Amino acid sequence: MVLERIQKENDIQKIAKEDLPVLAQEIREFLVEKISRTGGHLASNLGVVELTMAMHLCFHLPEDKIIWDVGHQSYTHKILTGRREGFDELRKYGGMSGFPKRKESQCDAFNTGHSSTSISAGLGYVEARDIRGEDYHVISVIGDGALTGGMAFEALNNASHLEKNFIVVLNDNQMSISQNVGGMSRYLDGIRTADAYTNLKKGLEKAIRKIPSGGDQILSHLRKTKSSIKQLFVPGMFFEDMGITYLGPVDGHNLKELIRAFREAKKVKGPVLLHVLTKKGKGYLPAEEEPSRFHGTEPFDIRSGKPLKKKEKDSYTDVFAKVMYDMGEKEPSLVAITAAMEDGTGLAPFHRKYRNRFFDVGIAEGHAVTFAAGLAAGGLKPVFAVYSSFLQRAFDQIIHDVALQNLPVVFAVDRGGLVGSDGETHQGIFDLSYLSMIPNMTVMAPKNKWELADMLRFAIGYTGGPVAIRYPRGTAYDGYKMFRQRVRYGQAEIIFDEEDIAIISVGHMFETAANVRERLKEAGLNASLVNARFVKPLDEECVASLAKEHILLVTIEENVKSGGFGERVLDYVSRMELACKVVTITLPDDYIEHGSVDMLRKEVMLDEESIYKKILTVYAGIQHQTVSDKGDQ
Amino acid sequence: MVLERIQKENDIQKIAKEDLPVLAQEIREFLVEKISRTGGHLASNLGVVELTMAMHLCFHLPEDKIIWDVGHQSYTHKILTGRREGFDELRKYGGMSGFPKRKESQCDAFNTGHSSTSISAGLGYVEARDIRGEDYHVISVIGDGALTGGMAFEALNNASHLEKNFIVVLNDNQMSISQNVGGMSRYLDGIRTADAYTNLKKGLEKAIRKIPSGGDQILSHLRKTKSSIKQLFVPGMFFEDMGITYLGPVDGHNLKELIRAFREAKKVKGPVLLHVLTKKGKGYLPAEEEPSRFHGTEPFDIRSGKPLKKKEKDSYTDVFAKVMYDMGEKEPSLVAITAAMEDGTGLAPFHRKYRNRFFDVGIAEGHAVTFAAGLAAGGLKPVFAVYSSFLQRAFDQIIHDVALQNLPVVFAVDRGGLVGSDGETHQGIFDLSYLSMIPNMTVMAPKNKWELADMLRFAIGYTGGPVAIRYPRGTAYDGYKMFRQRVRYGQAEIIFDEEDIAIISVGHMFETAANVRERLKEAGLNASLVNARFVKPLDEECVASLAKEHILLVTIEENVKSGGFGERVLDYVSRMELACKVVTITLPDDYIEHGSVDMLRKEVMLDEESIYKKILTVYAGIQHQTVSDKGDQ
Repeated sequence: MVLERIQKENDIQKIAKEDLPVLAQEIREFLVEKISRTGGHLASNLGVVELTMAMHLCFHLPEDKIIWDVGHQSYTHKILTGRREGFDELRKYGGMSGFPKRKESQCDAFNTGHSSTSISAGLGYVEARDIRGEDYHVISVIGDGALTGGMAFEALNNASHLEKNFIVVLNDNQMSISQNVGGMSRYLDGIRTADAYTNLKKGLEKAIRKIPSGGDQILSHLRKTKSSIKQLFVPGMFFEDMGITYLGPVDGHNLKELIRAFREAKKVKGPVLLHVLTKKGKGYLPAEEEPSRFHGTEPFDIRSGKPLKKKEKDSYTDVFAKVMYDMGEKEPSLVAITAAMEDGTGLAPFHRKYRNRFFDVGIAEGHAVTFAAGLAAGGLKPVFAVYSSFLQRAFDQIIHDVALQNLPVVFAVDRGGLVGSDGETHQGIFDLSYLSMIPNMTVMAPKNKWELADMLRFAIGYTGGPVAIRYPRGTAYDGYKMFRQRVRYGQAEIIFDEEDIAIISVGHMFETAANVRERLKEAGLNASLVNARFVKPLDEECVASLAKEHILLVTIEENVKSGGFGERVLDYVSRMELACKVVTITLPDDYIEHGSVDMLRKEVMLDEESIYKKILTVYAGIQHQTVSDKGDQ
Repeated sequence: MVLERIQKENDIQKIAKEDLPVLAQEIREFLVEKISRTGGHLASNLGVVELTMAMHLCFHLPEDKIIWDVGHQSYTHKILTGRREGFDELRKYGGMSGFPKRKESQCDAFNTGHSSTSISAGLGYVEARDIRGEDYHVISVIGDGALTGGMAFEALNNASHLEKNFIVVLNDNQMSISQNVGGMSRYLDGIRTADAYTNLKKGLEKAIRKIPSGGDQILSHLRKTKSSIKQLFVPGMFFEDMGITYLGPVDGHNLKELIRAFREAKKVKGPVLLHVLTKKGKGYLPAEEEPSRFHGTEPFDIRSGKPLKKKEKDSYTDVFAKVMYDMGEKEPSLVAITAAMEDGTGLAPFHRKYRNRFFDVGIAEGHAVTFAAGLAAGGLKPVFAVYSSFLQRAFDQIIHDVALQNLPVVFAVDRGGLVGSDGETHQGIFDLSYLSMIPNMTVMAPKNKWELADMLRFAIGYTGGPVAIRYPRGTAYDGYKMFRQRVRYGQAEIIFDEEDIAIISVGHMFETAANVRERLKEAGLNASLVNARFVKPLDEECVASLAKEHILLVTIEENVKSGGFGERVLDYVSRMELACKVVTITLPDDYIEHGSVDMLRKEVMLDEESIYKKILTVYAGIQHQTVSDKGDQ
């Protein structure tokens, strides 16, 4: 196997030319085989095998810096930098990350995960290099999907101004996770299909040449001139007009062409955009045919491409999808927005049924939120379905465009809490805090699948201002079905009203809280159990009554402590001078790596066992204290 | 006066054509006269007098929706919608806002304040209109500066995809607040200077026409074709390629031309971009010559253009500017970044001295932060100077690109806390919370001008991770100069160590806290006074010792409660079971309108008097309780 000769970075440069196509083939087989077992990102990785090889042939690592936008397409890069063995534990607890990580290899120049950051980061390296008088190449690889993110545009705008040597590779597969949308995509389309105009251009050139007096001169003049006229001869003129040299388009599966293009790109003074055309899923038919399904995949059968495990239960996303589909009928002003995540957020059925009330705005969360504000100001009821960690991109827009005008926008915040194998960049661990600090905002979280449905219907009917509903990735909890009190604004739901200890859980932590309560009961302790429902506003009446009737109040949430639900409760109890010990159980003040959610919960002590023990310890401490207090008297 | 005939919206349509130039002149005189007395935004408003008049002549309000990007250029719009009298109390407490406000007039379709939101909001209205089957025009007016913000690009990208009738006015004055930078600006430049090519184009046209066989046909074919060839005849081809009709450029001070252009724009099917060339400060010479100084101005003398009040004391921004200038010499790896706020943030002197280590990235906070992360990864020490409320735009980039990799980026967060006359959109009241929740982040705030200098030097020397220093707008406090203990990581500064009560103040609230302490002393109460210095990490040792030695611990910060400093203290005291009452004095969970900072502090009870009384009340309550507790025994 040629692949086995790759033990570390730059080893590929020792492979004979004629073996390179074999290597590409072996890498593809390796990726399909490994990912079919571990799950992971497939289609995007199959699309960049030759592109990655070409870069590793033309640049020297780790001196030269390759920055992968989003980064889930960096698997071949990991293989070529000596991390082949990591694929057995890909995205598993303690195993190799599915994204570039500086901690993992010095060949990973910059951590990524969210979209559209690579040009900004690359430009930082470029300036650092020149200021420090160093000499290396910087290459940022960005997809055409990520190019719809405004930040990429901000960075290009800045790069063209700074005029430093910098290679931006536009990996153009006409897709983000779903089909790409928008004017930039149309513009690139124009370039891709420029062949159709080639003949016309050639004809025109010929015609000018024929002009009796000085046709040749006109032509040479035209070639030299800047601005519009050049457009006739150079595709990608917009980039050129901005001050960025455009090269391409290049066939991204033709290694020879790619190598030639990189050699040319290295010679260009100033920023250069190399436009590479690739195909998602290239080389594995099921992925070529359904690139969206093979974007991030669970383990699958290689022959059929079918998932190994059948999904048995609904996810929270499924529940969301169904209610949106139903509500679309009842509520004609309901509209839905996604930022390039139609499938992931569950909006596909709504899209199919209500075509003109569905909006995929591209990878553009900031715009999505202000667009939603405009829709609401215009009299509609927008629901923006978005992953928790991506909504961080629109923090200012929520504050400034939605909540300030108190517009009734619904935020369906999916992937709240720990997400598992995608790791640090994707954990939705800040949302309760950053949403709760915003005035006029209502923040809810459902305890189980039925409550998500109830809350979504409630939120769609609510006209008093913006509402966020936060729910996690994965299978929806279907316990406690019989506990389904009507959702009332600002009111918590009391499940069991007992004595000694009161547990208030937020959203999906209810399942754990209920189990903890069972175990406390077995240990002879009676615990009340309350489902918070509303993180904001706090149900102060409920907290007051719990604090009066219990000596220990425990809050449980899968969110950082700072600004979370627990602190709201603690603040209220302290402010009201209620004589009740409050313990807030939250995530630590730290980033949390990849792994199964169960493993991660254990690590951060948010699992049943840890919480149970913690409560026992604290309760024993209070008992002891009360006894000794009495002894003092 | 013609101006007096304007009493409400659409009145301008009754003014005779020949009186319109007089009206324009009167509006300019009115603006200069009023703003010279109240202060406010001048240059941008003088630039759009004719543009605003043309819109009010061509559209009918409030049915048609005009959305002003940023919104500080909406003064003529306010005049033409019956709010002339509001200018006496412009930006004053209880008076008219300097920005569009839906609460203020139904002719203000959308609140703005931050940059680059208008196209997103307008597009929302457009879709709402069409889905509801209504019939009105939507016009978003965006400056070329705001067009460098990525969100505007995201919105254009989406607008071109949706293909609905929508007018975007590009108000091109070649400036944001400072001179505009970047590739988009260069691109627009190309269009503006297209005249130079006109002759060449005409020559080419002629030449083609002369081609013996079918030159005319070639030409007519060229005109019809889409894509690149059309570029010869249409400027703004990039917009056209995206799917947006481009009209212009139009002279923005020629009313007739503007009206003609708007009539044409109304007829276009689908989105249209109308490119209008204006001059900032138009008609008032001092503002034309120094548009940046007259962007937002204090009261000034009309004849000379000079400010009425001489600045006597340094602002915090001045202190920042001086230290940066000095440190640039000592620390060759120090680089500075601004997002189009070179003057406002005080980076101009650094820029002049260290040209290649200064970066104005355009109105692009998201990019700025990730660019800073790249610079730090490349071995430099970047300082991003930015206003608190604008940094909200980069929340995700701080989490995802800086703090996750623990890169040593310094955030100089200016305009923290209440900013005054700019009002709701510009108050920096969330920063301590949104920064403190981020793992690896250090958050500091100085008590006075000397401490800002010390902290900045400390932060530049600190290599352990990202640091934010947060300071307010306006004159720097110069009291307590003699209290200048060395800055030590994570350590608070004890100013007075007494008994009874302990006050911990955050940053510039120190001044108020010190005054409150004086008054308590007069009232016979001894209060310790501590300057927190570090909001994160919390100086737990200090809090523990304070809690042990006092019965009341008061925290004071100009920040929302949720996730703020007070909650950190309360959490610690509760967790450690320290027997000390904690009172957290913060801003309310609400947006805070414009007005002088002193007035606003009174309104939100963050002034000396309110805090003093609050402490007295709480303290008396504790005393009472302690006495009755003793009585019980």
